[in-house]
Amino acid sequence: MDNQHIAFNKVYLTGNEYKYIQQAISNAKISGGGFYTKKCQTLLEQKYGFYKCLLTNSCTAALEMAAILIGVKPGDEIIMPSFTFVSTANAFLLRGAKIVFVDSQPGHPNMDASLITSLITEKTKAIVVVHYAGVACDMEKIMSIAVANNLFVVEDAAQAIDSFYHFSDGTRKPLGGIGHLGAFSFHETKNISCGEGGALIINDPSFAERSEIIWEKGTNRCSFFRGEIDKYRWVDIGSSFLPSEITAAFLFAQLEMIDVIQQKRKDIWTLYNSLFTEKKLNSIFKISEIPGYSDNNAHIFYLDCITNDKRKNLIEYLAKNNINAIFHYLSLHKSPFFLEKHDGRELPQSDYYSDTLLRLPLYLELTKADIERVVQTISDFSKNE
Amino acid sequence: MDNQHIAFNKVYLTGNEYKYIQQAISNAKISGGGFYTKKCQTLLEQKYGFYKCLLTNSCTAALEMAAILIGVKPGDEIIMPSFTFVSTANAFLLRGAKIVFVDSQPGHPNMDASLITSLITEKTKAIVVVHYAGVACDMEKIMSIAVANNLFVVEDAAQAIDSFYHFSDGTRKPLGGIGHLGAFSFHETKNISCGEGGALIINDPSFAERSEIIWEKGTNRCSFFRGEIDKYRWVDIGSSFLPSEITAAFLFAQLEMIDVIQQKRKDIWTLYNSLFTEKKLNSIFKISEIPGYSDNNAHIFYLDCITNDKRKNLIEYLAKNNINAIFHYLSLHKSPFFLEKHDGRELPQSDYYSDTLLRLPLYLELTKADIERVVQTISDFSKNE
Repeated sequence: MDNQHIAFNKVYLTGNEYKYIQQAISNAKISGGGFYTKKCQTLLEQKYGFYKCLLTNSCTAALEMAAILIGVKPGDEIIMPSFTFVSTANAFLLRGAKIVFVDSQPGHPNMDASLITSLITEKTKAIVVVHYAGVACDMEKIMSIAVANNLFVVEDAAQAIDSFYHFSDGTRKPLGGIGHLGAFSFHETKNISCGEGGALIINDPSFAERSEIIWEKGTNRCSFFRGEIDKYRWVDIGSSFLPSEITAAFLFAQLEMIDVIQQKRKDIWTLYNSLFTEKKLNSIFKISEIPGYSDNNAHIFYLDCITNDKRKNLIEYLAKNNINAIFHYLSLHKSPFFLEKHDGRELPQSDYYSDTLLRLPLYLELTKADIERVVQTISDFSKNE
Repeated sequence: MDNQHIAFNKVYLTGNEYKYIQQAISNAKISGGGFYTKKCQTLLEQKYGFYKCLLTNSCTAALEMAAILIGVKPGDEIIMPSFTFVSTANAFLLRGAKIVFVDSQPGHPNMDASLITSLITEKTKAIVVVHYAGVACDMEKIMSIAVANNLFVVEDAAQAIDSFYHFSDGTRKPLGGIGHLGAFSFHETKNISCGEGGALIINDPSFAERSEIIWEKGTNRCSFFRGEIDKYRWVDIGSSFLPSEITAAFLFAQLEMIDVIQQKRKDIWTLYNSLFTEKKLNSIFKISEIPGYSDNNAHIFYLDCITNDKRKNLIEYLAKNNINAIFHYLSLHKSPFFLEKHDGRELPQSDYYSDTLLRLPLYLELTKADIERVVQTISDFSKNE
């Protein structure tokens, strides 16, 4: 069997990236907010029906904008999963919030919506959901809890581009487009990438005007460019959230090919899934389950290794066979930074996925033979377990 | 006379930008912190003798890192000029600071160091200097005030790459390398550019370890990559401050040509200056003065138009002649956002430069004929004044 190295992730190029970067430069505008920034924003707004989209330097930056927009103040409580990336929490900590971590679901890394209500106090300001692997949280339930308790919902949709939630009335909405605000990532590891990048989605129109101001360093520069005022001024806090046109040009080359990219990723995901079923590996590893209310955007194909030891052994076995598979988040409530700040509740499901979840290689260059080799190697491993 | 449009600014390309971006992509690493990020950081550290440099998404981001590193807390007072960009203030406001604005010097937009001591209270945490047009503030005086009062000094060196301060003992230090921390901008409008970008300079080694953590979203990922720990964890607050390798590749193509770029800018600045002297325009406009303790990095060639009306008329006259010249900052203490927060002190010099300063076109494509035309047009204007 061929033993060439199989990486965990490889950047996919559509072929138009350089051309658009050259175009951005010949437009004599490489700072943020120009032609390609608008092209990306308009594409996302039109394709997914988002009310408003603003490109950002990262999903982290988009979450920081969300925290400013919903007016987080010192002492406000924000409910979010512990099984997530640090930026989900940092964005709100930077505004002085108290983070209240909620456990994952038994059977899925996403937050357990049934635990939210018991964590709500009079200081609770928002629920931040994280759609792990692009699989939707139970948004119908979460939105109804938010409405009942007058809370904001921010969607950390870092991994969730081009995924949808299906409501019980038969309608569907794109992830990132359901809460008051949503945040996407275009980091190197994501389905659509520009190295480092993100987008804030504004679903509640009341945030639209201020979102532009915070994006433009607290100035009304967007109004100035639209000719609504004669000079732009400092009117609010803000930061430099705009990516350059070079970044936006690269991103546009990817976004305009999103349907092709998504189909290829889904084909890879489906092949993994059918090979695992065929080889009856489901009894040794659990395969990522997609609830009926969610689409699958094929961002991650992961195994639940049941125990940390088995995961450790599998990672080593795959590495020996020149295959790179990697674990993911470590429960934030048990981090060196947060352990003393946490209220002591056990979050066993979050710890479970910290210990057992393993992500397999998934990128467009991966061939059918590569995928068969990955699954065969795991099958070989399981015979010795 | 040729009447072709003369822009205010044009992006200069060294010619290696695409090549390095392609190299970054073939390195299979387009997220931040890779080969070109390190190349840029090392170049800046070695060329200017900086203790440590970290690339950021913007100068704003570098200032935000500085505010976190010096431990700004709600109520801390930060002294800074009112004649500056909003980011100088926002970075500290986001940490809850109270901004205390200081006036500009009579004769120069830089902060008047003689006014600082009277503004220091027991709550003062830091002095933030802004080296306007790349011309140094009176750093010897400011550093001695800081030492005497146990204050941090952060240099907003957004415009000050490759400029130096000359101390009275005959030594010199690069701007951005004198205070505890410094921040550069590589925005499109700067001498060295990557569209949107910046760098944090760490001059006080005690900030070095934490600066890497805050840069990497509050994790010890840098230690992990150096093999010092086996997995990286959440250990502090932080944000996603790293620019992509695409951005860093573009930036490196510019940084490695800095000596050539700087010489060309200085030639343009010197030609402007000698033509203004030759045409005896100094009586109608004041030309930007460079104090003996500062180098001139030729970032901006500006006129002081003496009155707001004269500036307005000159801008219109130049526009009629197809030349784009633009004013700069509006006093922050009089902004819609800060007017009610300001303590009521008059800052007449800051207001003066808000009203009268005019920046002329300055970029590498500008020909000798272009510059002569700009000066001749201003000379024609002045005859009708």
